[in-house]
Amino acid sequence: MMLKELREQVWQANLQLKIQNLVIYSWGNVSGIDRAKGIVLIKPSGVDYDALRPEDLVALDLEGRVVEGTLRPSSDTPTHLELYRRFEKVGGICHTHSLYATIWAQACREIPCFGTTHADNFYGPVPVTDPMQPEEIEGDYELNTGKVIVRRFAGLDPMQVPAVLVANHGPFTWGPNAEKAVENAVVLEQCAQMALGTLQLNPEQPEISRVLLDKHYLRKHGKNAYYGQK
Amino acid sequence: MMLKELREQVWQANLQLKIQNLVIYSWGNVSGIDRAKGIVLIKPSGVDYDALRPEDLVALDLEGRVVEGTLRPSSDTPTHLELYRRFEKVGGICHTHSLYATIWAQACREIPCFGTTHADNFYGPVPVTDPMQPEEIEGDYELNTGKVIVRRFAGLDPMQVPAVLVANHGPFTWGPNAEKAVENAVVLEQCAQMALGTLQLNPEQPEISRVLLDKHYLRKHGKNAYYGQK
Amino acid sequence: MMLKELREQVWQANLQLKIQNLVIYSWGNVSGIDRAKGIVLIKPSGVDYDALRPEDLVALDLEGRVVEGTLRPSSDTPTHLELYRRFEKVGGICHTHSLYATIWAQACREIPCFGTTHADNFYGPVPVTDPMQPEEIEGDYELNTGKVIVRRFAGLDPMQVPAVLVANHGPFTWGPNAEKAVENAVVLEQCAQMALGTLQLNPEQPEISRVLLDKHYLRKHGKNAYYGQK
Amino acid sequence: MMLKELREQVWQANLQLKIQNLVIYSWGNVSGIDRAKGIVLIKPSGVDYDALRPEDLVALDLEGRVVEGTLRPSSDTPTHLELYRRFEKVGGICHTHSLYATIWAQACREIPCFGTTHADNFYGPVPVTDPMQPEEIEGDYELNTGKVIVRRFAGLDPMQVPAVLVANHGPFTWGPNAEKAVENAVVLEQCAQMALGTLQLNPEQPEISRVLLDKHYLRKHGKNAYYGQK
Repeated sequence: MMLKELREQVWQANLQLKIQNLVIYSWGNVSGIDRAKGIVLIKPSGVDYDALRPEDLVALDLEGRVVEGTLRPSSDTPTHLELYRRFEKVGGICHTHSLYATIWAQACREIPCFGTTHADNFYGPVPVTDPMQPEEIEGDYELNTGKVIVRRFAGLDPMQVPAVLVANHGPFTWGPNAEKAVENAVVLEQCAQMALGTLQLNPEQPEISRVLLDKHYLRKHGKNAYYGQK
Repeated sequence: MMLKELREQVWQANLQLKIQNLVIYSWGNVSGIDRAKGIVLIKPSGVDYDALRPEDLVALDLEGRVVEGTLRPSSDTPTHLELYRRFEKVGGICHTHSLYATIWAQACREIPCFGTTHADNFYGPVPVTDPMQPEEIEGDYELNTGKVIVRRFAGLDPMQVPAVLVANHGPFTWGPNAEKAVENAVVLEQCAQMALGTLQLNPEQPEISRVLLDKHYLRKHGKNAYYGQK
Repeated sequence: MMLKELREQVWQANLQLKIQNLVIYSWGNVSGIDRAKGIVLIKPSGVDYDALRPEDLVALDLEGRVVEGTLRPSSDTPTHLELYRRFEKVGGICHTHSLYATIWAQACREIPCFGTTHADNFYGPVPVTDPMQPEEIEGDYELNTGKVIVRRFAGLDPMQVPAVLVANHGPFTWGPNAEKAVENAVVLEQCAQMALGTLQLNPEQPEISRVLLDKHYLRKHGKNAYYGQK
Repeated sequence: MMLKELREQVWQANLQLKIQNLVIYSWGNVSGIDRAKGIVLIKPSGVDYDALRPEDLVALDLEGRVVEGTLRPSSDTPTHLELYRRFEKVGGICHTHSLYATIWAQACREIPCFGTTHADNFYGPVPVTDPMQPEEIEGDYELNTGKVIVRRFAGLDPMQVPAVLVANHGPFTWGPNAEKAVENAVVLEQCAQMALGTLQLNPEQPEISRVLLDKHYLRKHGKNAYYGQK
């Protein structure tokens, strides 16, 4: 069995989806990539988390050819692969229908940065894709889902804004590895709920200032970060 | 004791109501049918889930005659029986007063399909019945509850939209068996909460396109489905 | 130690407040009465539920004289006693600051009967008291709290509507015994949350019809009830 | 190791943040002070609660010099120190991004006193600071956060209103010790959620009367308090 360590990480990250209440039943999926080998490990389609074993994860190359595993990979696999191909620093990807992030996706609205909780984690609003066109839906749908995400990130650094809302659908998050992709999904869910509540108190609430966004994002990320133990 | 296997399934499905936080106290009920024998098993009336044993389920024929069991069947039994008589592919039925589905029922509004979470499970809006008329309420109320549901499904396939909101009351869900009926109740609750939140962000939110509804519903259901392991 | 059985019941009912998420810390209190002896047992003031023992409950007569116990009774005791004196069929009383019931109390609005969940348990809207007058607050405040509740029930049967919202404060519920008083507090909290959500979907939502209210309340209560096993 | 007893208290108070669902991951922090020695103990930066040991807490003097400990203190330490220097009766401080308190902070609105739950704990509205100015953010940010809090409390007694919302950010709470600071954070979260719901029912809801505020705050605090066992 290939990629023993990555397999364990991606398996644990999948289990976190349920532990963190981001999914019910077999919904959602997490993948991770070994960039050196060009191999992606992803959750099999429609398998419950309670039954999921490390060896059930499916290994594919970046063109989607299964290189190890007997189960069918997640139906969202082509979306993951497109993101790995185009966002070259991404090491793990997570897809859920978590409640509040999905509410924003369904309303086809980006999540504004209303506070430092958001700014600590996302360097600006969490963008929403364009609604997919009929030919994108009827064609290679899951691949095209990846393409509308990539298109939306023109001019954005996906490592600084490691999340997106697919319009009418739900969130994808990512990070340097599968564990961090899931953490970003948890944090996104918090920010989405906070932002909805903020608009209930003030429908005209403006975003925070650029200087406050810079302060909080950069004290946790980048070369001058001073949060944490290193 | 008849129908040992079905009895176990229906018992487990009833217990799921509490595990999934769809009910409190003795509220709610699940039934299952053996179509070959024409026998329905249903929860007894007013019994707490903690105390419920498989042998407490009441067996009835489709005309409501008790064929086995010493307890009184759920007061909602005539509703279940009407649905079994008229929706011939239904194998299990579930009734709850789950929070968000009941909120929509109380507002007498159908739940629009605002996203792919809904489209993955319900092939269109979840309908709401007409408010029941005084003579329907004062007459054979629980039977008439079944009749207003059936009336509402004229032109709809109950296996493609396995849920309904009874106006001013709450949801009924169903499926090929009791377990799946409860799963549909869980999913309905999620969709109901997401839809309420979506309207809070955008009171004029339109439903998703027909092509996106088709894509998501049909990739999980029907002969060209490609989700899951088979 | 007097009233061993009642003491156990009232103690268990107090513990339920925490188990059912109706209170945090030492908030809330439950009492029960032995009508034959004219003795009330009530939670001591400011004692955490984790530390509460049956023998900590304080026994008082209906005029508020402690007849057994070394701790100070709940500061809300005079409210309970006034309700026992004036609502003669009440056997147990419960006071909480549960989230959604308190929201309605703070908004000084009665909870309309928007559905059968409410109608199954409360025979009409859950009333809200008048705001208390400065002299009522500065005088014998807790006794006066009882008096404004009793005043609000002029023309209402407290056994058919076993709950009230004290304006700007929170709910009191009651029942034939302490256990049922707590159950009514749980159900009130559900109905309060459902009613808030219903108004979010339709701010002009009317109450359910009288005939539907009668049907649901009376199928569970009174001489023609047919819900449950008796 | 210094301050063994205080260290245990502050450690337990930090763990409570997670137990009480006020934080996720390593968010939030609690500190406590030994006023006689002039030493503050505070959570280290970016350490998960599951891994936190009593000996990980960092000891500093009131000028921020580390006097014991090998880890970096919370990045919010200068805020805590400013509050200890200026609010001389404060014995413990707590900072979280708890959901509902943060929603109010993000909306830059103080939390009005809409009911007795609030009045039992906070002697008036929970204030919100001014938004921080660019030079305050780009300068010594965490120290300046303390300063805007102190500025906001001109004319207020921090022991009677032991909480504040930092605009666009989140709550700080405090008390005579670390445990009570966390309890105030829990209660603030409840009051924040209740106040949001109250405005959803009545956007024009006025605050409670001064006499009711006095009654409830003073029956639990101060020399004439009569709540609890002493």
